[in-house]
Amino acid sequence: MSLFPSKSRLAHIVFEHDDEASKNFDLIILVMIMASLVVVILDSEPSLYAKYHNEFLILEWILTGLFTVEYIGRIWLSKKKLGYIFSFYGIVDLLAIIPSYLSLFLVGTQFFVVIRALRFLRVVRILKLGRYMKEAEVLKTALKSSRPKIQLFLGTVLTIVLITGTLMFIVEGPENGFTSIAMSMYWAIVTLTTVGFGDITPITPLGKLLASVIMLLGYAIIAVPTGIVTSELTMASSQALKKERKTCRVCKTANQDIDSIFCKSCGERF
Amino acid sequence: MSLFPSKSRLAHIVFEHDDEASKNFDLIILVMIMASLVVVILDSEPSLYAKYHNEFLILEWILTGLFTVEYIGRIWLSKKKLGYIFSFYGIVDLLAIIPSYLSLFLVGTQFFVVIRALRFLRVVRILKLGRYMKEAEVLKTALKSSRPKIQLFLGTVLTIVLITGTLMFIVEGPENGFTSIAMSMYWAIVTLTTVGFGDITPITPLGKLLASVIMLLGYAIIAVPTGIVTSELTMASSQALKKERKTCRVCKTANQDIDSIFCKSCGERF
Amino acid sequence: MSLFPSKSRLAHIVFEHDDEASKNFDLIILVMIMASLVVVILDSEPSLYAKYHNEFLILEWILTGLFTVEYIGRIWLSKKKLGYIFSFYGIVDLLAIIPSYLSLFLVGTQFFVVIRALRFLRVVRILKLGRYMKEAEVLKTALKSSRPKIQLFLGTVLTIVLITGTLMFIVEGPENGFTSIAMSMYWAIVTLTTVGFGDITPITPLGKLLASVIMLLGYAIIAVPTGIVTSELTMASSQALKKERKTCRVCKTANQDIDSIFCKSCGERF
Amino acid sequence: MSLFPSKSRLAHIVFEHDDEASKNFDLIILVMIMASLVVVILDSEPSLYAKYHNEFLILEWILTGLFTVEYIGRIWLSKKKLGYIFSFYGIVDLLAIIPSYLSLFLVGTQFFVVIRALRFLRVVRILKLGRYMKEAEVLKTALKSSRPKIQLFLGTVLTIVLITGTLMFIVEGPENGFTSIAMSMYWAIVTLTTVGFGDITPITPLGKLLASVIMLLGYAIIAVPTGIVTSELTMASSQALKKERKTCRVCKTANQDIDSIFCKSCGERF
Repeated sequence: MSLFPSKSRLAHIVFEHDDEASKNFDLIILVMIMASLVVVILDSEPSLYAKYHNEFLILEWILTGLFTVEYIGRIWLSKKKLGYIFSFYGIVDLLAIIPSYLSLFLVGTQFFVVIRALRFLRVVRILKLGRYMKEAEVLKTALKSSRPKIQLFLGTVLTIVLITGTLMFIVEGPENGFTSIAMSMYWAIVTLTTVGFGDITPITPLGKLLASVIMLLGYAIIAVPTGIVTSELTMASSQALKKERKTCRVCKTANQDIDSIFCKSCGERF
Repeated sequence: MSLFPSKSRLAHIVFEHDDEASKNFDLIILVMIMASLVVVILDSEPSLYAKYHNEFLILEWILTGLFTVEYIGRIWLSKKKLGYIFSFYGIVDLLAIIPSYLSLFLVGTQFFVVIRALRFLRVVRILKLGRYMKEAEVLKTALKSSRPKIQLFLGTVLTIVLITGTLMFIVEGPENGFTSIAMSMYWAIVTLTTVGFGDITPITPLGKLLASVIMLLGYAIIAVPTGIVTSELTMASSQALKKERKTCRVCKTANQDIDSIFCKSCGERF
Repeated sequence: MSLFPSKSRLAHIVFEHDDEASKNFDLIILVMIMASLVVVILDSEPSLYAKYHNEFLILEWILTGLFTVEYIGRIWLSKKKLGYIFSFYGIVDLLAIIPSYLSLFLVGTQFFVVIRALRFLRVVRILKLGRYMKEAEVLKTALKSSRPKIQLFLGTVLTIVLITGTLMFIVEGPENGFTSIAMSMYWAIVTLTTVGFGDITPITPLGKLLASVIMLLGYAIIAVPTGIVTSELTMASSQALKKERKTCRVCKTANQDIDSIFCKSCGERF
Repeated sequence: MSLFPSKSRLAHIVFEHDDEASKNFDLIILVMIMASLVVVILDSEPSLYAKYHNEFLILEWILTGLFTVEYIGRIWLSKKKLGYIFSFYGIVDLLAIIPSYLSLFLVGTQFFVVIRALRFLRVVRILKLGRYMKEAEVLKTALKSSRPKIQLFLGTVLTIVLITGTLMFIVEGPENGFTSIAMSMYWAIVTLTTVGFGDITPITPLGKLLASVIMLLGYAIIAVPTGIVTSELTMASSQALKKERKTCRVCKTANQDIDSIFCKSCGERF
């Protein structure tokens, strides 16, 4: 890397991910994002806040400064500046620096903590272009084709939650912690998903019987989304394997079996 | 949509789901069902009940009126009126309006809340005819052919629950919360399904050992229903794919692409 | 059914399951077993014990009497009497009646409750010969071939439990409920299997971090037994489908593809 | 086995696992490891420590002595002594004896308990060469090829944990137990993995709503790692099966049984 790289070289380093310099740049940004997240997490710890809040504030401002420089640099290096600014990642990059500046003018900036946590989304961009590309593609295909089945499944789950929630509200009642249908539905979700916090539990025998049915149901129907995703994933993977197909050089018919001897369209010998 | 649609046009709008007018009608009913469910849920919340019970009551009566109009309309528009009234959805539609009217004459109408929750079933009718049809079909096929295996699985689970429930009742005893075999069986279900409320937990070393075995068992046998459903789903999907293959009548090579014009083995024209 | 069926006819009714009379006999035994289990379960309920213990005792003795008659009848009807008595089901049948008689002579018969619960095993015999036979066979095959993989998996799980249990004992210590390595291992099982009773929970930050790792691990590795069983089930099912194979009428070579035109051993045209 | 086996015979017994003598040696070591682990576990139990600590100490020293003899023997019998000493298992063998000797000089040896638990790793060596070899191989292949997908999945899970953890910290706040972002993230992991200890639970309606979403998410996305592993396992198994098929050199029909003598399509002798 020369001392003063050209603008096009800089753009390559910032936007591409294929040589050492650009990979190092990605790594630096990755470390900065992680550091800023760690600062946010540690600063929320009361004992650490009491002791080190000022140090965390300084670190936060240093990182915000660096992110600002990076953001301005990205705009400067972009060919289509507005395109970058209003792109998804452009907005994420902006959201990563805005909370710090706004907190200078506004009090009660607790809400900005969440926005800062969104910086994590920037990690996605970096990883996106790494070695996980192919896997992400297969997963995405499988999940996309499972979506209607999963929606159907979630609909069924919500119906069960609504009906059992209402039943438990009547069976157990407010005196046993099931203070409203909404509360009962919350309990039904906690139970059906096998989380089982135990903050509300059935007390009456009938409630326990009903709870047992819901638990067994939840235990059994977990099989359905798993089956859906697995089935789609197996399809997606085996289709990816099948992709190694032949194309006829005479009639250009593609997607022929790799073990074909004659073209299935024009009969040409391969 | 003309101002006064004909009766047959109205019947189309109400019973079919294939043009804009009928889809809008479905959407209105959907919103009304959702609104009535939200009213029931919010009205059960003590704090909201205290403040807004009258408002909820008015809303409930407006919606009941609309559902009544819809129900009478459906009867009027049906060709086979009795057929609709005694059909599954006809009864669900009636159940959606009856509780409100009954509550005028009967006190302690808490039980009607559940019946009102059944309105949710009306959503199923609307969705049933949407884009989820094909997915529902595949899921139904897979679940139907898994049914005997799942029943067998549930039988095994209940046997384990009965035996471990009895064992835990003897090992832990009433002094540790396992007050009866039924209670122990409830605990066994809570544990085996990995829900784990924590309202009853083993105290003695032997009870903890037994609990550990049940937990590991529950953790391992969850694999069985999942395996069953997945296996059936994969079969159902791949059978749907396999349905369309050709066989050469000369060389008898089977399993050729349905769009082939020449046999891939001997070059014979199909 | 004649009024006085012959002995061979009675033996058929008792031991076979293929006509109406024998199916009715099975059903009666099934109802009796279920009734006796319900009596045992209800009698263990303190409130019901106080009120109805005598009634339960009478019912128990009536059922024991009927089971005794059935047991003696089975011996009388067996061709190989000793063979039946010492067979698995013969012993189960005996265990179903012995506790009641022993309780006449022995005090503190709480342990007999478990033995009575074993009556449930008799249900297995009845169901075994019903319509679940084929499914049970496929499940058994799949589980048998998954066994070494599952054992390996359980070994890995126990290693994780031992190591994390020891680590948590040192990190959290007796003051936070992790009173011994055995207790920590119990906690590790509760956590890894995602049961999560909440009777013991990590208090220190390091303990919570370690617990997070174990939870994510448990969440991820549940995939392994599921994958194993599913994979084996898919194999077992597809192998069952493949069974429809041809046998050559000349050389008798079996297990040939159903689409073969020539025998793969002797070249005979099918 | 002669009274004084030769050195090469001893080396065979110690390092190989293929005849009776070497299998017995493995078994003895296995029992010794298990015994030493049981001693460590029981000694950590306060009530047993009070009564039997001296007995446990004596047992521990006897076992340490035997392990020491075994370790020295292994060095003596190795052809490449340094190779063994610095191999993975050589270090594990050394770690199995060192804590006991160090505890003579150092006080506060609680940390050595973990190192002693590492003795369990020695079991792996013994089992490794048993009948689980093939299964472990298939599992390893499947897990290796699932690794990038699983890493991607864990990354997604951690993103969800970070974002929901931050949201819950703001929604519920320190007064409801969500004392910091780190604590909230711990809670998010407990919830997403469906463990559900119940030591921290949402109190506010908004928190409960958010928790419900996370629980349903956790319940649904467990399907993804399961799908990944299952898909890979099925591939690995079916690829192992497919490896052995023939193709006819005349009619080019592929995928014929490996034991065929004549082509199943054209009758050509292979």
